[in-house]
Amino acid sequence: MELAQRNRVFTKSGIAAVVVLTLGLLFLRPLVVHAAGLVEGETQFVLNTFAFLVWGALVMWMCAGFTMLESGAVRTKNASMICLKNIGIYSIAGLAYFILGYNLMYVDVGGFIGRFTIFYGSSTSELALLGGAAGAAPEVVSNGFAVMSDWFFQMVFVATTASIVSGAIAERVKMWSFFLFTLILTAVLYPIIGAWTWGGGWLSEMGFVDFAGSTIVHSTGGWAALAGLIVIGPRLGKFRKDGSVKPTPPSNVLVVTLGVFILWLGWFGFNGGSQLALGSALDAVAMSNVLVNTNLAAAAGVVAALAVSRPLLGNMDLFAGLNGAIAGLVSITAGPNVNDHWWAIIIGAIGGVLCTAGIKWLTQLKIDDVVGAVPAHLLCGIWGTLAASIAAGAQLGVQIVGILAVGAFAFIASYIVWRLIDMTVGLRVSKQVERMGQDSGELGIEAYPEFVLMPEEFGDED
Amino acid sequence: MELAQRNRVFTKSGIAAVVVLTLGLLFLRPLVVHAAGLVEGETQFVLNTFAFLVWGALVMWMCAGFTMLESGAVRTKNASMICLKNIGIYSIAGLAYFILGYNLMYVDVGGFIGRFTIFYGSSTSELALLGGAAGAAPEVVSNGFAVMSDWFFQMVFVATTASIVSGAIAERVKMWSFFLFTLILTAVLYPIIGAWTWGGGWLSEMGFVDFAGSTIVHSTGGWAALAGLIVIGPRLGKFRKDGSVKPTPPSNVLVVTLGVFILWLGWFGFNGGSQLALGSALDAVAMSNVLVNTNLAAAAGVVAALAVSRPLLGNMDLFAGLNGAIAGLVSITAGPNVNDHWWAIIIGAIGGVLCTAGIKWLTQLKIDDVVGAVPAHLLCGIWGTLAASIAAGAQLGVQIVGILAVGAFAFIASYIVWRLIDMTVGLRVSKQVERMGQDSGELGIEAYPEFVLMPEEFGDED
Amino acid sequence: MELAQRNRVFTKSGIAAVVVLTLGLLFLRPLVVHAAGLVEGETQFVLNTFAFLVWGALVMWMCAGFTMLESGAVRTKNASMICLKNIGIYSIAGLAYFILGYNLMYVDVGGFIGRFTIFYGSSTSELALLGGAAGAAPEVVSNGFAVMSDWFFQMVFVATTASIVSGAIAERVKMWSFFLFTLILTAVLYPIIGAWTWGGGWLSEMGFVDFAGSTIVHSTGGWAALAGLIVIGPRLGKFRKDGSVKPTPPSNVLVVTLGVFILWLGWFGFNGGSQLALGSALDAVAMSNVLVNTNLAAAAGVVAALAVSRPLLGNMDLFAGLNGAIAGLVSITAGPNVNDHWWAIIIGAIGGVLCTAGIKWLTQLKIDDVVGAVPAHLLCGIWGTLAASIAAGAQLGVQIVGILAVGAFAFIASYIVWRLIDMTVGLRVSKQVERMGQDSGELGIEAYPEFVLMPEEFGDED
Repeated sequence: MELAQRNRVFTKSGIAAVVVLTLGLLFLRPLVVHAAGLVEGETQFVLNTFAFLVWGALVMWMCAGFTMLESGAVRTKNASMICLKNIGIYSIAGLAYFILGYNLMYVDVGGFIGRFTIFYGSSTSELALLGGAAGAAPEVVSNGFAVMSDWFFQMVFVATTASIVSGAIAERVKMWSFFLFTLILTAVLYPIIGAWTWGGGWLSEMGFVDFAGSTIVHSTGGWAALAGLIVIGPRLGKFRKDGSVKPTPPSNVLVVTLGVFILWLGWFGFNGGSQLALGSALDAVAMSNVLVNTNLAAAAGVVAALAVSRPLLGNMDLFAGLNGAIAGLVSITAGPNVNDHWWAIIIGAIGGVLCTAGIKWLTQLKIDDVVGAVPAHLLCGIWGTLAASIAAGAQLGVQIVGILAVGAFAFIASYIVWRLIDMTVGLRVSKQVERMGQDSGELGIEAYPEFVLMPEEFGDED
Repeated sequence: MELAQRNRVFTKSGIAAVVVLTLGLLFLRPLVVHAAGLVEGETQFVLNTFAFLVWGALVMWMCAGFTMLESGAVRTKNASMICLKNIGIYSIAGLAYFILGYNLMYVDVGGFIGRFTIFYGSSTSELALLGGAAGAAPEVVSNGFAVMSDWFFQMVFVATTASIVSGAIAERVKMWSFFLFTLILTAVLYPIIGAWTWGGGWLSEMGFVDFAGSTIVHSTGGWAALAGLIVIGPRLGKFRKDGSVKPTPPSNVLVVTLGVFILWLGWFGFNGGSQLALGSALDAVAMSNVLVNTNLAAAAGVVAALAVSRPLLGNMDLFAGLNGAIAGLVSITAGPNVNDHWWAIIIGAIGGVLCTAGIKWLTQLKIDDVVGAVPAHLLCGIWGTLAASIAAGAQLGVQIVGILAVGAFAFIASYIVWRLIDMTVGLRVSKQVERMGQDSGELGIEAYPEFVLMPEEFGDED
Repeated sequence: MELAQRNRVFTKSGIAAVVVLTLGLLFLRPLVVHAAGLVEGETQFVLNTFAFLVWGALVMWMCAGFTMLESGAVRTKNASMICLKNIGIYSIAGLAYFILGYNLMYVDVGGFIGRFTIFYGSSTSELALLGGAAGAAPEVVSNGFAVMSDWFFQMVFVATTASIVSGAIAERVKMWSFFLFTLILTAVLYPIIGAWTWGGGWLSEMGFVDFAGSTIVHSTGGWAALAGLIVIGPRLGKFRKDGSVKPTPPSNVLVVTLGVFILWLGWFGFNGGSQLALGSALDAVAMSNVLVNTNLAAAAGVVAALAVSRPLLGNMDLFAGLNGAIAGLVSITAGPNVNDHWWAIIIGAIGGVLCTAGIKWLTQLKIDDVVGAVPAHLLCGIWGTLAASIAAGAQLGVQIVGILAVGAFAFIASYIVWRLIDMTVGLRVSKQVERMGQDSGELGIEAYPEFVLMPEEFGDED
């Protein structure tokens, strides 16, 4: 709620209130405030803005993390396609969010959706200041941060959502069809959910709490992935007729591990930056706690996932341990500002267990999620949003309403889009391309062209 | 120009003016400024300095990006050599710029070149402050930023320039010969171009605009690479006698992709830090716009390059798409502070198209640029510098003068150095080493010693 | 000493003094200080805190660097295990330091050790501020930085120490045994050494200088590694009966190189953040010099190691060059705030030579350090700590006492723990697992399952 309110205040009609407040403070400050050496207007503005930029850059880095995690997890024959898809995702998401998405999410949100206009940009006062009108500075400063620094930070979030989908349905989805889905997700679907919440819409009004997006970013991505998985079906030969499951271990463990480390690092920006301000001692204290809790939850997720991987999956599983980090991170994301840090350990550890169990459940349901995105992002996203009511003071009922509303919308809308794509341009590559691999079959560039690879065995799957 | 002027003011004779201005402000501020909560002297100093350090660290990270891009792009038999060359480049550049380069570029620049002295270091007042003389603080603060924070930021730029050259002429240049060229480039050639522009020399006086170095960094690197390519010639067997071209796809696509993501992230530091200040709302707003434009241009470069790769190159080309990101980034670098963000999209998209076409043109000219450095850095560097006159208010004529002057100097001087190296210590490895690969032939360390690799075919090339 | 004193002042009984000082300044400032625009209370607090968080995030990134360096350096058959061990290390270290380690190191340190209590968290005044009591702000601010931002920064340091050990004894240590050692190292051993020094204990009282931990972090890790190496013995077949040494070059040079670049980048946070403050011009100047010296020392380490690798090791050695970077970085870490930057070059260069020679010495002693951790971290850690007395004003005698005391404690305590583990749960995997590789033998997940690898030759080693 704190996050939603801030966003609302800063980006919408509340600006008037801020201006009044700021002007009020300006007249009072010389008398009382200077003596305490408080952070003042312009300094606050610069610090808030710089925090958005630095943390936002780290969140952009998460897209590299997803790329490495996914391209190392798939068969070598599909790894180039993952690289192309992920750099494409980040590019399309950034353009779509600039052209339409941000406006739908944040500009004049009236309960359900923002303004349907194209492009976004600096405020009039910022343009005046850039143009040399020093007198525009006070109005610029009254916004609390540079307009486009917030846009930058929100943009890297939408890219994250899209990245989550990519890995789940890898190794069989057509590239252009996937790009089309990405475009719709980042220009329309995610912004609508964002408008309800961080944009100040109806869920925000109810008091829904989702500090950095366990539900808004991660579950949304997870629901979109789940819908895609149901529409597209498992990879050829993954679930054999005799009931056994073909093992598909990561093809490059080092690259997967690098991806997880990148995501862990990027998450400091994801959660830390979601404090949305750095202009006071309060913000600095809160941001510090957020980083600490984020790290503790991830660490607990790893340890818990490793510990339960043997009983649940039959062996100590490195991939479960790596996913445990993601699980812990997603779980803490709805309430990383909890005061008692041991809560972060508990929340992350439960996330790690849930994710490991979820990998098993999905396999039992014959849903073929290549990287475990649904357990890590959807399941732990739900858990994290509930946990925020236990540890961070959110109202349980409201959290459930939020989870259900976002889930219903994200899943149904995604399902419809996936179906429409499937019925028109087609969603899945041909069996021949799938067997050969998308790299040589669809793209013409192998990931490791000089390396001698072992041929993959195919059975009676068709 | 803004950049050049700032640099000039801060690093040279303009310091006196700053001191006077600052002192003037100090007496006025308690009356008028405090009321508005402006960023003041020491806070401004700390913020400016910290921005140099944080963004500079990200620019250093670009050297890892070039290393990954290049080592994943070459044949496996030359990948270790690329790793060694790139860590060597960054080391040599850092030392050469400390010992001589920075002085030539920024100290007492008199039109064409700075001072020919060795070493650089903290100012006298900084040393006094570090030594305990608190009274030195005002003089320290009057510089606007810590002296060595600027040095750090400028140093990582020169390393970038050298990195550009490495990939183009890979797989056949002798290691020590290349290091020798790097030394001359970073100690003398780049600093001279830098003195003309950011150092406040004649091009800066004319009003040449190059915000973060489309020409100064990227074209300079591209010209040096082109000269090297002409002197050294193509790899054995690349251009066959029957007129066909031997395909040499990246040997490790994941590593190339990682490299591009690293470069993209680092570019936020490259362009964002080139605002050269963070001590006011104006700087914070400008820096935000710079990051947004940088990202939009890169995204547009990817999409445009992918879109035109099929008509231009015959297939959807991942490597063209990845180079499209670099192309968009280079293109926006001369004017990333443009106010209308859709200009960034246009500039980046044109860059992506140019780069893809450039890859084709170079091949037609039988110039063998292993990683596409010339199209991405030289061609897009020129385009970006011109674009700054369209979108960011630079004067077209001056921009052309700058492009030509820097190009002529960088190309001719590099050509002479390459030729001299070739005539003395030799530039190219033996045919035997080239066939065997530099890793086992020159270095004795293979990149992937335990992996079974496919033997490379050689034809009638000699 | 500066570092130790700061830490002491901030984290322990000195807080009262700070409060008095701060209150005193608050009354004086409106009269004299405002005129100079100094950084004041809350702004200082925010800047100090943000520096901890940003630089701390970069230090966390070093764990990814160690993971890449080590997993690329080992045989392919053990690379997955390295990935698992390193993500496990970082998780265990973070939890152990939260539960116990930080308290032992920094809370109420009475000469030899801090308080034996569990958990750590925000101060009472911070909790009040977070809870809405705006009046708590001055007390919060008087601490100088957010309590948990310092915890975060210290936590990533302990993780680094543990990472150093991992690579040295790779390819034969049992996973759970190694995790047990990590737990003891990070919860107890490292914190005790930390209490003596940065915690304000007896070595700090004597005036021992170790700015960012050449001894405290790197030598400690190196001693623990050396003890482990002696207890566990060399890999099967490394030292042959005929006196020859089996070459074990890195199995993936690109990944090793990436690891070194990550470490280099992370080191800017490691050393830069160890200034422990950013709230004044003095701090900003010092931090700038620290980053510059760190970079110069690393660069000099690379160049020196490459130069001496041919005479010392028989050929130009890439791995020696890469380790030269680490060596230069470790060497400058005890005194990166030296004013004359050419000292950093000398210190780093000597470190590079020492490390290369150390690789040779260890081999002659038949100690099988897989990644050269002992030469790079222990030998250069000692050198760096001595160098701080030459260049950075420390007392040579005190430095020697510190090196010996920390060395004796770290080596003996580690040796005992390794022995106890060996005698109880066992330290080394079976010969069969070692031959097969830990990935398939112990973990069940190969690092590169689809790649055709060359079989390893084993001789008469058993």
